[in-house]
Amino acid sequence: MKVITGIKKMQLWNKGVRKKGETIGFVPTMGYLHQGHLSLMRRAKKENDRLVVSIFVNPTQFGPGEDFKRYPRNFKRDQRLSRACGADVIFHPQAKKMYPPDFKTYVEVGKLGERLCGRSRPGHFRGVTTIVNKLFNIVQPDTAYFGQKDAQQAIIISRMAQDLNLPLKIKVLPIVREKDGLAMSSRNTYLSADARKNAIILYKSLQTAVGMIQSGYNSPREIIFKMREMINSKPGAKIDYIKIVDARTLKEVKRLEGRLLIAVAVYFNKTRLIDNKVVQSYKRKKNGLYRRR
Amino acid sequence: MKVITGIKKMQLWNKGVRKKGETIGFVPTMGYLHQGHLSLMRRAKKENDRLVVSIFVNPTQFGPGEDFKRYPRNFKRDQRLSRACGADVIFHPQAKKMYPPDFKTYVEVGKLGERLCGRSRPGHFRGVTTIVNKLFNIVQPDTAYFGQKDAQQAIIISRMAQDLNLPLKIKVLPIVREKDGLAMSSRNTYLSADARKNAIILYKSLQTAVGMIQSGYNSPREIIFKMREMINSKPGAKIDYIKIVDARTLKEVKRLEGRLLIAVAVYFNKTRLIDNKVVQSYKRKKNGLYRRR
Repeated sequence: MKVITGIKKMQLWNKGVRKKGETIGFVPTMGYLHQGHLSLMRRAKKENDRLVVSIFVNPTQFGPGEDFKRYPRNFKRDQRLSRACGADVIFHPQAKKMYPPDFKTYVEVGKLGERLCGRSRPGHFRGVTTIVNKLFNIVQPDTAYFGQKDAQQAIIISRMAQDLNLPLKIKVLPIVREKDGLAMSSRNTYLSADARKNAIILYKSLQTAVGMIQSGYNSPREIIFKMREMINSKPGAKIDYIKIVDARTLKEVKRLEGRLLIAVAVYFNKTRLIDNKVVQSYKRKKNGLYRRR
Repeated sequence: MKVITGIKKMQLWNKGVRKKGETIGFVPTMGYLHQGHLSLMRRAKKENDRLVVSIFVNPTQFGPGEDFKRYPRNFKRDQRLSRACGADVIFHPQAKKMYPPDFKTYVEVGKLGERLCGRSRPGHFRGVTTIVNKLFNIVQPDTAYFGQKDAQQAIIISRMAQDLNLPLKIKVLPIVREKDGLAMSSRNTYLSADARKNAIILYKSLQTAVGMIQSGYNSPREIIFKMREMINSKPGAKIDYIKIVDARTLKEVKRLEGRLLIAVAVYFNKTRLIDNKVVQSYKRKKNGLYRRR
């Protein structure tokens, strides 16, 4: 396994690989790898001749006052884990090479980036789409793998790839959870023992919401009310948002119809956790039966 | 020579070419080809194994009330000219395929796109960078060729390519002029016989400006005043802007130092013409001699 820090070097490496007719799977990460990342890497390695993992804590997707500086880093451990998953290259560029002083270009997906997490984190998704676009141009993968944990990010990146005709496939893989249901996240390391225990409530509230939808509850308000109640029962939990949105447009729905994304963001002290579930809702027909939309 | 309209088909064609280890030169155009375009095509063909020309009148770079609908089109003639320059493919997509109804992603270069023509044409360069980015992803050239006639566009696209780490080279070739000095443009076809004659004043005023700078004039204001006087002397000419800017940042300069871009935009009736000159200015030293910056 190679560690490549130079942008041109990375592009040269790909050129060589493509010349041999080999395919490249790509997993972009901010490092501090967990089982979620590893599931992406294993799948990417299985489906491609070569696996490139990028490790780069991207400054442009952090707002002022966010955790850019203290974001957890452990490059040695990341190297070991990547190697174990069969990575051929870790691309690990320097921020000053990715964003030289005269850097000016950004990629934006409009409204999609202003909803949900975009409301609490203005500019975040502009940072994400820009860095992912850059990484795609540098790594030139055949397929790139993202986690459903960052549901909005996955939707936005898929949108960008389609709109800009990027010559690659995007695959989004399921959330990997701890045994008790907490979604894996590099930020879980910030949690105190108490907060760690209480944080399960995100998953539990999502399960409850899915149950309510499947048993015929029809009002997003009622479901969100219930979720809010559950989360607020945990000391130290501060809700950022609880939303039920159309899984494609991310617009809030008034009726539970079609493919829905239930998304939550909750602070425990300064640590902001997110989680989500996608659910296919059924529509109640006049005769009292449900039908699939 | 092939005409390809499908996006996926174009991407497949490139894949085949690259597999053979051949290089692709690319000339993106809005069609109604003139000698300026042809000079790019000939150079691209000379420097690459394959030449792809795109012909697409891009709706997102026209503002409301601009000439999108009446922009001149002649696909048959364009085909003939492209073939004569050795084009292997004309990529000629449909607008509804390039911009499907749920299209949302744009590429922007910030302030660079708000200066000069960007002031008179808000959103224009956002449309340009977005379509060029898309075309680059579809055609995947080794080198793309642009004309110096659209100086700001060339600077912005070079900036985008660098910032987003696009795996290609950008080359900018000199303005091709009519015998009397008028810069070639598809829009020249709009001009009445009188306006056509008067339009030479753009070039003449630029020549005068260069002469003034080279003979030691030090004040942009004086030079712009002279240019304004010359252009206003022509009936029907309505100045949009005359600017002397830093050739890299496009910021207006107060002193004539370094590499300068002198840029003009002038309306003749509804037809907006642009032209420019790049000039290396000399700085007067205290002892009265000039030295190169």
